[in-house]
Amino acid sequence: METVSQTRSNGGMQGVYRHRSRETGTEMTFSVFVPDHAPGATMPVLWYLSGLTCTHANVTEKGEFRAACAEHGIIFIAPDTSPRGEGVPDAEGYDFGQGAGFYVDATQTPWAANFRMRSYIEDELSALIGAEFAAADMARQGITGHSMGGHGALTIALRNPGRFRSVSAFAPIVSPLNCPWGEKALGGYLGPDKNDWRQYDACSLIEDGARLPDLLVDQGEADNFLHEQLKTGLLVLACRKAGIPATIRMQPGYDHSYYFISSFMAEHIGWHAERLKA
Amino acid sequence: METVSQTRSNGGMQGVYRHRSRETGTEMTFSVFVPDHAPGATMPVLWYLSGLTCTHANVTEKGEFRAACAEHGIIFIAPDTSPRGEGVPDAEGYDFGQGAGFYVDATQTPWAANFRMRSYIEDELSALIGAEFAAADMARQGITGHSMGGHGALTIALRNPGRFRSVSAFAPIVSPLNCPWGEKALGGYLGPDKNDWRQYDACSLIEDGARLPDLLVDQGEADNFLHEQLKTGLLVLACRKAGIPATIRMQPGYDHSYYFISSFMAEHIGWHAERLKA
Repeated sequence: METVSQTRSNGGMQGVYRHRSRETGTEMTFSVFVPDHAPGATMPVLWYLSGLTCTHANVTEKGEFRAACAEHGIIFIAPDTSPRGEGVPDAEGYDFGQGAGFYVDATQTPWAANFRMRSYIEDELSALIGAEFAAADMARQGITGHSMGGHGALTIALRNPGRFRSVSAFAPIVSPLNCPWGEKALGGYLGPDKNDWRQYDACSLIEDGARLPDLLVDQGEADNFLHEQLKTGLLVLACRKAGIPATIRMQPGYDHSYYFISSFMAEHIGWHAERLKA
Repeated sequence: METVSQTRSNGGMQGVYRHRSRETGTEMTFSVFVPDHAPGATMPVLWYLSGLTCTHANVTEKGEFRAACAEHGIIFIAPDTSPRGEGVPDAEGYDFGQGAGFYVDATQTPWAANFRMRSYIEDELSALIGAEFAAADMARQGITGHSMGGHGALTIALRNPGRFRSVSAFAPIVSPLNCPWGEKALGGYLGPDKNDWRQYDACSLIEDGARLPDLLVDQGEADNFLHEQLKTGLLVLACRKAGIPATIRMQPGYDHSYYFISSFMAEHIGWHAERLKA
């Protein structure tokens, strides 16, 4: 692992790091914010998975998470959203290929070799964080994310019961099986058999028996993607049917941008802190 | 005045606006954050002047000011740093010409026609804000800024006694007369007579008798520009000699970036709020 930069901010250190990934076969960049702490102390870890087109940089610059993480003593990890680079397959459009990994392990040519963001996040990067950041207490992890990254957070948490003490999302894609972004991405990465998609669909995972202890979701009512792509209502129904105590808040006037995310970031971090530090 | 965008954020409205400026002869863009308020209510106004290369967008995206402004009920205004566009003179380098207006009224060819950022901020944009934003109480104004914008905030406040109830700065250029950025910019915009520069030099203005009621400055100790360009020590001495009760804080480990600015933004806004709402 190579240090790209370390910048003091909000009583902690905002780092950007790069490493050669075995899963994606590429260099991968991610950011980690570590609040100041006593020597030898450890802190819980909060994963933030980003949305379409984003790298680690968007939330790192615009997410407004550092003050709350420093206040609560939480390490904040922001990975990239896909492998990138000249040797990596790509497609026209912002919603498939580079910048749009959808947190799956692709099975289809030409994507299968590099597009392994599920294993990258669940296994490889988790192990790297545990090995390289002495302050990271990997027994206390939370996960959140935005849009495609909210989908990533929900599905990773649902597939790994007990691993995340706290789960939240900002404007998540709740059911790729039921929206154009999901049809395109899961079809492209996983092929036409929709049974293979269910492990990457939060609502299907819940329908198939996966559970979360609880859940916080914020969704802007003025979000352009709400009705065609995000379909928050499907998650409300799935949680209700499954008895998952989900707090799903519709926020009047808010859109899909970082102006929305940053507005509710401190509340999400507080919510994770309650569970991670209980 | 034309609305470029209005986005709900942090319990308020983040707007971006454009207008044809009489002073600069160009279209000028600026941003205004207005916290939610009761119909007919008015709020104090805080100006934020940006540094070299910046537009309104840098602080608007990365400044982390909205939560604190919403909490205290303060309108936040972020202008551009110079006229821009094809018809506007420019120079090689990031520290002179477009993006580097230095908040002066230029007297030299070819700059004098457009580079009138002093009059633009002090007169034209102030009048526009007062006319267009019913919630803005122009009798209660504060001013702050970063680097070149810190220089702008200090010099505008010093030249306009009584107009700003609160003044602060992040890593300001405290004496353009005594640094390479200032030599280049003031020499270029104002010509070689350094007597003409003193009205645009915070330390000289104080030496020549201008006063502030008090002042808050934060300066990163790991700021690459500290020793050659910013020279905070000169402001410490000038304030001490003049009896200005300045709180000038050296912040260990912090650099010149928005990671530094955003770390102390909420404290600055709280400090302005105390004075603007007293």
